[in-house]
Amino acid sequence: MQGKGNTNRFMSISDTVISSRIRLARNVLGLNFPNAYTGRSEALFSVMQRVENCVRGLFDYDFIFMSKLQNEKKLALVAQHLISPALVKNSATGAVLLEKKNEISIMLNEEDHIRAQCIVQGFELDRAYRRINEIDDKICSALPIAFDKQFGFLTACPTNVGTGMRASTMLFLPALKMSGLLEGKVGEVVKRNGLTLRGVYGEGSASLGCMFQLSNTATLGQSEAEIIGFVKTATNDICLLEEAERKKLLASGYKFSDKLHRSFGILTNAILLDSKEFLELVAEVKLGIILNILPQIELKSIDKLLILSGSAVLSSLTGAVNTEQLDFARAKLARELLTK
Amino acid sequence: MQGKGNTNRFMSISDTVISSRIRLARNVLGLNFPNAYTGRSEALFSVMQRVENCVRGLFDYDFIFMSKLQNEKKLALVAQHLISPALVKNSATGAVLLEKKNEISIMLNEEDHIRAQCIVQGFELDRAYRRINEIDDKICSALPIAFDKQFGFLTACPTNVGTGMRASTMLFLPALKMSGLLEGKVGEVVKRNGLTLRGVYGEGSASLGCMFQLSNTATLGQSEAEIIGFVKTATNDICLLEEAERKKLLASGYKFSDKLHRSFGILTNAILLDSKEFLELVAEVKLGIILNILPQIELKSIDKLLILSGSAVLSSLTGAVNTEQLDFARAKLARELLTK
Repeated sequence: MQGKGNTNRFMSISDTVISSRIRLARNVLGLNFPNAYTGRSEALFSVMQRVENCVRGLFDYDFIFMSKLQNEKKLALVAQHLISPALVKNSATGAVLLEKKNEISIMLNEEDHIRAQCIVQGFELDRAYRRINEIDDKICSALPIAFDKQFGFLTACPTNVGTGMRASTMLFLPALKMSGLLEGKVGEVVKRNGLTLRGVYGEGSASLGCMFQLSNTATLGQSEAEIIGFVKTATNDICLLEEAERKKLLASGYKFSDKLHRSFGILTNAILLDSKEFLELVAEVKLGIILNILPQIELKSIDKLLILSGSAVLSSLTGAVNTEQLDFARAKLARELLTK
Repeated sequence: MQGKGNTNRFMSISDTVISSRIRLARNVLGLNFPNAYTGRSEALFSVMQRVENCVRGLFDYDFIFMSKLQNEKKLALVAQHLISPALVKNSATGAVLLEKKNEISIMLNEEDHIRAQCIVQGFELDRAYRRINEIDDKICSALPIAFDKQFGFLTACPTNVGTGMRASTMLFLPALKMSGLLEGKVGEVVKRNGLTLRGVYGEGSASLGCMFQLSNTATLGQSEAEIIGFVKTATNDICLLEEAERKKLLASGYKFSDKLHRSFGILTNAILLDSKEFLELVAEVKLGIILNILPQIELKSIDKLLILSGSAVLSSLTGAVNTEQLDFARAKLARELLTK
């Protein structure tokens, strides 16, 4: 466990910080950014080869051409945050080097030539950084990388210029969402550390499933260590706020317990569940398990359910195509995974 | 099974007709009606004795003085339709001769001196009439009963003058309620037979739990056999309408099944259930069991749950006093009885 405190917590920080991620954007010197090319391009294909050559043997991966992947599989990888929607759009020349255990993922010819990320379970930003930094060192020593002494790494989008790094934690904040403190107290912590907090599921500012990504806004004028420090500090502070709200909810009596039990009853009995309701029910059930109010289902089953129940994964898994079929398959999966 | 049809039904009529009841109102000649007396009255006490003397040995009963019964027990008997709220009001001089198996109940000094009823499970109006008529014959031959050659039996309320009889069936009509046909098609059947249909639970015209009582309006100008005939005909016709709607709902796809499964999930998981929501959930769960959509819980458990979960019974059973305690006890009972 990282972070400031090791006081006697009533909850584990791992119940709140789902995963930690570091992503680095790099580009090859003398080559246009991927979006400047249309269709197949030898220059971009050579980037793929050169990157693969220098990481070969560093980790156990699959080399996946976007053009050879079914659409559902692509969307399933997006749902797992292993590739981005932008890579799916660049299917003609895009590829991903995906570690078999799904921690390291190197997207090739997305918005930048190289986007290398490491995503790990729990609050482990330092470990994620160490792993991806080791790979980045190899790439930067083997390939001519676009780097400016004044600005740092050059990227397709100016918001990534500098470190080219995005450090983030994925947070489960049901109590803060229920008590309406995300705008207020949490917003202050986020601003104070120069970060951004956004919902993981749902469009725009919606935050279905109470899952949020906390990440740095600036990549310029701050070192990698400083950026990671800000994200760690804010993550810790938000966890403490979430903890306080969970305690309040626990002490609030039967109504809260009733709400969570009803969500459990619906999630384990419904025949149709649309993704919005599903994510909301899962969030409440997960909170109920964490707080020991609901039957002690393994959180791993819940996380598995979350990954499998996205429309893309579900569709490739069950062959469901229209909305009702997807809602039916999602509800069936929930019943099966939660009531064994 | 009584009634017109013995065509190949997909549902048993006993799933729709919960119980059948015949009630007879009688008064002793030369004595004021009970409401004319205030407080204890020797004349009214003598009625009790004389009725008991003439039915002794006819059936196995408890003689219960209202004045010696705790309020919760009184309300519990009301909830089971074994005594009326009017008898509870007349506690000073009221009593009930209650058959141990709860079919025969003779209220003494309610609105009339004698109100004898027989309530039986299922669609058995003839059997209910035979049983109560046998007892009524004994009473009418042993006591001087107020009877007018032109009008028939005389009663405290003019709406009972004549036969003094109320014949009724208690009907479970969830599909007709869901499809909004109670006012239309059902209303026509009720009117055509000169009857009344009203909700069993809830005040006024509310019909919580989809339980309805169908009974005759007139007691004057019709024979006992005619009245029973009208109630039987209308009961049969309404059962056929309910059956048709159940078939439509069954054929309507996942949404209907989803609705019933959710109700089951909430009823078997909630921590707080108010009586209104409880009755609605029970009705849907019962329908789901009957239609073989939900786990095949015995309908007896559901009926037991309905009787035990009324606030009065629940209070005497668990000691719950305020609304939250009652809602908690009701939900606990539902979980226990339905998820064994």
